[in-house]
Amino acid sequence: MNAKTDAVLATLEADQEAAQARLMDWLRIPSVSAQPAHAADCRAAGEWVLAQLTALGFTGSLRETAGHPVVVAHHPGPPSDRQSAEGRGAVNRPAKDAGPHLLFYGHYDVQPPDPLELWTSPPFQPTIVEGPNGPQVRARGAVDDKGQVMMWIEALRAWHAVTGSIPVRCTVLIEGEEEIGSPSLDPFLAANAAELKADVAVISDTGMWDVNTPALSTRLRGLVYTQIDLTCASRDLHSGMYGGLALNPLNLLTRVLGQLHDENGVIQIPDFYEDVIDPSPAQKAEWAGLGFSPEKFLGEIGLTQGIGEANRAPLERLWSRPTADLNGLWGGYTGDGSKTVIASQAHAKLSFRLVPGQDPAKVVAGLHAFLAARLPEDAKVAVQVFGASPAIEVPADSPWIGQARAALAEEYGRPAVLIGCGGSIPVVESMRRLLGLDALLMGFGLTDDQVHSPNEKFDLVCFRHGARSHARLLGRLSA
Amino acid sequence: MNAKTDAVLATLEADQEAAQARLMDWLRIPSVSAQPAHAADCRAAGEWVLAQLTALGFTGSLRETAGHPVVVAHHPGPPSDRQSAEGRGAVNRPAKDAGPHLLFYGHYDVQPPDPLELWTSPPFQPTIVEGPNGPQVRARGAVDDKGQVMMWIEALRAWHAVTGSIPVRCTVLIEGEEEIGSPSLDPFLAANAAELKADVAVISDTGMWDVNTPALSTRLRGLVYTQIDLTCASRDLHSGMYGGLALNPLNLLTRVLGQLHDENGVIQIPDFYEDVIDPSPAQKAEWAGLGFSPEKFLGEIGLTQGIGEANRAPLERLWSRPTADLNGLWGGYTGDGSKTVIASQAHAKLSFRLVPGQDPAKVVAGLHAFLAARLPEDAKVAVQVFGASPAIEVPADSPWIGQARAALAEEYGRPAVLIGCGGSIPVVESMRRLLGLDALLMGFGLTDDQVHSPNEKFDLVCFRHGARSHARLLGRLSA
Repeated sequence: MNAKTDAVLATLEADQEAAQARLMDWLRIPSVSAQPAHAADCRAAGEWVLAQLTALGFTGSLRETAGHPVVVAHHPGPPSDRQSAEGRGAVNRPAKDAGPHLLFYGHYDVQPPDPLELWTSPPFQPTIVEGPNGPQVRARGAVDDKGQVMMWIEALRAWHAVTGSIPVRCTVLIEGEEEIGSPSLDPFLAANAAELKADVAVISDTGMWDVNTPALSTRLRGLVYTQIDLTCASRDLHSGMYGGLALNPLNLLTRVLGQLHDENGVIQIPDFYEDVIDPSPAQKAEWAGLGFSPEKFLGEIGLTQGIGEANRAPLERLWSRPTADLNGLWGGYTGDGSKTVIASQAHAKLSFRLVPGQDPAKVVAGLHAFLAARLPEDAKVAVQVFGASPAIEVPADSPWIGQARAALAEEYGRPAVLIGCGGSIPVVESMRRLLGLDALLMGFGLTDDQVHSPNEKFDLVCFRHGARSHARLLGRLSA
Repeated sequence: MNAKTDAVLATLEADQEAAQARLMDWLRIPSVSAQPAHAADCRAAGEWVLAQLTALGFTGSLRETAGHPVVVAHHPGPPSDRQSAEGRGAVNRPAKDAGPHLLFYGHYDVQPPDPLELWTSPPFQPTIVEGPNGPQVRARGAVDDKGQVMMWIEALRAWHAVTGSIPVRCTVLIEGEEEIGSPSLDPFLAANAAELKADVAVISDTGMWDVNTPALSTRLRGLVYTQIDLTCASRDLHSGMYGGLALNPLNLLTRVLGQLHDENGVIQIPDFYEDVIDPSPAQKAEWAGLGFSPEKFLGEIGLTQGIGEANRAPLERLWSRPTADLNGLWGGYTGDGSKTVIASQAHAKLSFRLVPGQDPAKVVAGLHAFLAARLPEDAKVAVQVFGASPAIEVPADSPWIGQARAALAEEYGRPAVLIGCGGSIPVVESMRRLLGLDALLMGFGLTDDQVHSPNEKFDLVCFRHGARSHARLLGRLSA
């Protein structure tokens, strides 16, 4: 197998310019999922990538949803020796010994490019420019997610060129609504769970630690997102007539939510930390060795000091500790100047980032208890829950992590680090919940890629190593 | 003088129906100061009331401002005996022994009548309807302030009918912008301070204790109104990427403002209570005797329990204790559903009702100190001050209060109570500051008058007693 992988890598090297040209073709399609005017472009971007796959022997189609279509394509992997000897194709029929069945996930849609005036070249005219790490391609979607999808498609293409097939059985799912919250994805996964069954999901939509240090994201925080609506008096009141005697829901809201953390940054929701699973000492040691600089991380956003639990390392606070952040707050008079009103209602959006072990339902229950213990009888409270998903952890000792780590180490000449991700990636949770799949998050983005911002770019050195890493991983998994 | 007053009261009784008709004429003019389409109506309402005054021997005019005009009219009071004997008029020249010089204040503008569909008769077609206290006139402006202005004009008219003049020297100032915050009043008072000089201001724009208990408002709380703008990171952040390490201004704002009061309702601004002048024991005893029911007061707005300083009587909390009320709160995402953002900024409108003794500037300084002691270095705060006026107290032993109390006691057969007012009446503070005048707040509104609401009304029994009380007061002051 080493010999085959070497040939595949050589093919990738020889094919680099053509691979860049293909990526740029895809980037020229303005597949902005949020804008109805671009619906046809979204479909075109899906058809474009489907054609790439069918050229490699995949069978697939655009599958309709309530929104933009989903690309689904299947490949049975290499024909078995016997089938091969008999000269029969094996399309859509898996070979018995073809190794694991991978589900590649990606998305063909992109964020709106606005504000256009901040782009130094048009967002849908991909442009190669020179950056600190060499040439980079600048365009909307360069790294999120077209560039990262094309890495594994190029790896599959190179394997196909060398072997006439692809080395393992693959299903591909490329959606067109990731940038608008994937409203059609869960129903689609649920309706097609049997067809989409695989052994592991492979996703390239995350980042490296830095340009020289490959990474696998093995921890994603979960999310409970709530809205708290507080009602006191039956109508808005004059603050002169009533002030001093009438309960003010804005004062009350600040009083109650001001107690969310104690002076050490510890969240005061009852039983909040009870089930938290701490990362292993080895994991913590690995994070400690990353040389993370909170000064640099916070300095870029105008802050000098980290908040949170003083006895936890900064990276732990981002990756393995839960949070309670107010995302919105409103009530009373918010216009210019003054209005002497005591409002009837006050509102807050309050979300919790969860870590492995925490049960979203228990956090919601804890929030109810926290509020009930602090609200007087005259305050009526309603809690809406807009999302509740647990954290995700792929065990460091899973065979998928092991193979991916080895492939990355071969490519980069140094170990891949297992990192966390402070945010959630909803598709990962959906795939676990609806398909029973773990996800291998092997991404090649860099922190300066301007994701969702003007001048989004993808370093070609990342594109190249990413495709090579995927080619190596495919080789290892088929061995 | 008693004989004259008796004749005046008899004239008022005989003239009642005509007085009601005059009030209804004025109420038919839709002088909505907030709506530019009603600018001509505002002027017409000013001209209408000016004509009432000139018919009584006043000399006056509509005075232009940047907004709606101000009605100013003067009457020198009764001719001296000698002048009278010589048959010479005394217009614009005060008689030497004509008693005090009163400045009557009122306003001819009204609130917008919206929502119209909640009116049971058109707001500018005044209608007499039967209420629990007998007939009442229903119209926008019925009590606020046209009905209350017409009480003292009718009293002056009756005096004029009986004596051929009015009993004391009077200046009248009726503005047309009270319902929009009197933007032109302070400049007008400052520019015409010499002309408007008098001994005391007489204002009927407040209420009685109840329909049988006359009241003088002797304490008005002051107001400091601020906006607090808090800035943390230099841009909005993703709550997954940054949550747990980046300072969240909404969390911080609730944490800081949640400490405005301690658990006993005591405001924590440094030195906040230091200069507070407590009402006299006699005053407190009078208030305690009023039989105020917090259950009823709060029950009408859907609350069951008063907040504030537990060791202070409810009326004290409304009339003689300062407050700290949030009037508005906003920041982050306030739309439907969820957005996982850590905002860069958070905002609050925070106002303080002040009581006699408190210096507004010292309260603002205390707020700065309160915030500075609780904000970390990474939080930048700006405090805007939209208004800062001290509380007003007219001493219970002032001769004006004494005369008004006596007049009211004669009319109602029971003592008038000296009450507080939780709100501010800006013109009272302006007259003190710019003209050096105390105000005699003798008002005849009731709590169910629907001021600023649909179906505003004025009980005719209040209108009648109000005019009679003003007639008695004029008699006493000219004695």
